Amino acid sequence: MNVLAVEKAMIAHLDSLTKPKGSLGKLEDYAVKLAKIQGRVPPLVRKKAVYVFAGDHGIVAEGVSLYPSEVTYQMVLNFLAGGAAINALARGTGWEVIAVDAGVAADFPPAAALPAAARFLDRKIGKGTKNFLVQDAMSAAEAKKALDTGHALADDAAAAGYDLVAIGDMGIGNTTTAAALLVAFGMDASLVIDRGTGIDDTALARKREVILESVRNRGPFSDAEHVLRAVGGFDLAMMTGFILGLESKGIACVLDGFPVGAAAYVAFRMKPSVVDLLFAGHRSRVKGHAPVLEALGLDPILSLDMRLGEGTGAVTGGFMIELAAKAAGEMASFASAGVSESAEDEKDF
Amino acid sequence: MNVLAVEKAMIAHLDSLTKPKGSLGKLEDYAVKLAKIQGRVPPLVRKKAVYVFAGDHGIVAEGVSLYPSEVTYQMVLNFLAGGAAINALARGTGWEVIAVDAGVAADFPPAAALPAAARFLDRKIGKGTKNFLVQDAMSAAEAKKALDTGHALADDAAAAGYDLVAIGDMGIGNTTTAAALLVAFGMDASLVIDRGTGIDDTALARKREVILESVRNRGPFSDAEHVLRAVGGFDLAMMTGFILGLESKGIACVLDGFPVGAAAYVAFRMKPSVVDLLFAGHRSRVKGHAPVLEALGLDPILSLDMRLGEGTGAVTGGFMIELAAKAAGEMASFASAGVSESAEDEKDF
Repeated sequence: MNVLAVEKAMIAHLDSLTKPKGSLGKLEDYAVKLAKIQGRVPPLVRKKAVYVFAGDHGIVAEGVSLYPSEVTYQMVLNFLAGGAAINALARGTGWEVIAVDAGVAADFPPAAALPAAARFLDRKIGKGTKNFLVQDAMSAAEAKKALDTGHALADDAAAAGYDLVAIGDMGIGNTTTAAALLVAFGMDASLVIDRGTGIDDTALARKREVILESVRNRGPFSDAEHVLRAVGGFDLAMMTGFILGLESKGIACVLDGFPVGAAAYVAFRMKPSVVDLLFAGHRSRVKGHAPVLEALGLDPILSLDMRLGEGTGAVTGGFMIELAAKAAGEMASFASAGVSESAEDEKDF
Repeated sequence: MNVLAVEKAMIAHLDSLTKPKGSLGKLEDYAVKLAKIQGRVPPLVRKKAVYVFAGDHGIVAEGVSLYPSEVTYQMVLNFLAGGAAINALARGTGWEVIAVDAGVAADFPPAAALPAAARFLDRKIGKGTKNFLVQDAMSAAEAKKALDTGHALADDAAAAGYDLVAIGDMGIGNTTTAAALLVAFGMDASLVIDRGTGIDDTALARKREVILESVRNRGPFSDAEHVLRAVGGFDLAMMTGFILGLESKGIACVLDGFPVGAAAYVAFRMKPSVVDLLFAGHRSRVKGHAPVLEALGLDPILSLDMRLGEGTGAVTGGFMIELAAKAAGEMASFASAGVSESAEDEKDF
């Protein structure tokens, strides 16, 4: 079936179920979008994983973050030990957690020595990016390798049989990198640079100046891959490659917050049709996230003022997509349940 | 511990966990509210059930609904067979489904002859209410019995060990009853009477006239119980009693859409402190729901344009409360995970 035929068949299926038409609201929209991605009526979610891409960012040398870079490494160990928010929320909603070392600035112990609450994938491109205020974040070869590695992870996800994946981030300084990417693509700096809750006016002004000066220093840019190399991150570039790789595999992908949104925006600039497989798990409280979602044309599933990253918003909101698929797949029809239909659609049910 | 001490201890607990302070947003608010209700830090959700109160409404004789009354009975059978939306969504989120016959206008087969995807509780007060355009919906004795039965169900819920309950509704005509209750309490008819999607201008005008005339005919009202008897429903009155009964039992309660909200509003008018144990699972697309939530001072967890009832919005949104409790209960602390803390709160995590 082509996509239009799938959409039509899916809507007809939803309308046959024991509920007033359209009364499951956006859950019905998610079921239809998932059916179109999977080419299957009703859609199925049997196996799902959240990929948390971890990386360090040389730009933190400019004092844009109050946490030290070591926290990236420490938090990946926390994911593997099962003690982070993403572990609790993923356990509660049935997602496997896969921690991807895309470029953490420290060496992990051998896999056998690591705890295994989450799977660990060593895909390290380098020990953190360079400080892009003074030089490109990475070489052209590193940018290509990060994109290709992300693409290969998508191939692996398809081979492993995931019906639904989510993307999360862990990296001290990654919101600064995300903002720099968006500004380099022409987005208004005042929309995407956030004060956070702990940065005072002086620190905010400094962060803004660092981002604007970095983009001036690194530009002009020849194409999206150039932007990614100049002011990107290993983690964000790998996410971009992952999203590009997922296209055509029939695997829906749920985005987390601002850094993941920025990586998706890069993928969108490289190939606009990727938005057809993307869901926005939530709208985070990080200031730049809403304009990114708007640019992607994505309506966030949840708005719970979360701003933690790690994929927490993606697994929580993304679980609604699974619920939508369950409702579509498990409900009785009017005919099978012997329930009288209304002649017209109505709300008094 | 008193409530303030619990609140303080819960916030301190949340701030010790491996995440920037407050970064789980409203999930942290839910965890704090649940801790205050349960008197336990961190709070726990081990066993939860959605009570779907079913009843018929004599006012449907006035042509306010396009579905026939038989649908109430047929849908309860669908709950018991496991084919309704509430079954799929409750299975997906781990809630038991309890279908309460509060006043369905038909006799159910003996319990042994019913399928058992949901538990069935025969608490029938009568076979549907009277048409309250022309007479009180029920007698004073029936109103008292419905309230008392709801209260007893709360006692049973506590004895059964539920940490969290949700309330759903099933009853053709129950949004008309809900609107009549709210108008009788003085809410603006234009805010709480909904066109729905299938009612045309003529039918809407008729529905409005029926509600306004009913309230004129039945008033003036001496107290909340009088309102409930005059223009209420067996199902809604039993929900009101259930909510009143839950207070002081340390069981949090998640509300579904408009009819459940109206029943909660009646409980609130009888005892304003009940709002301390209530969560709004979602904001439904039924027009009157938002003003009811506002009157109760409740911020809806989800806004997915659902308008199905049955508790579907309550179990879906209410699941976020369980996730909040899981995160609070399972996450490592900065100290236990060996993660460096920031001197200040910051977002670049």
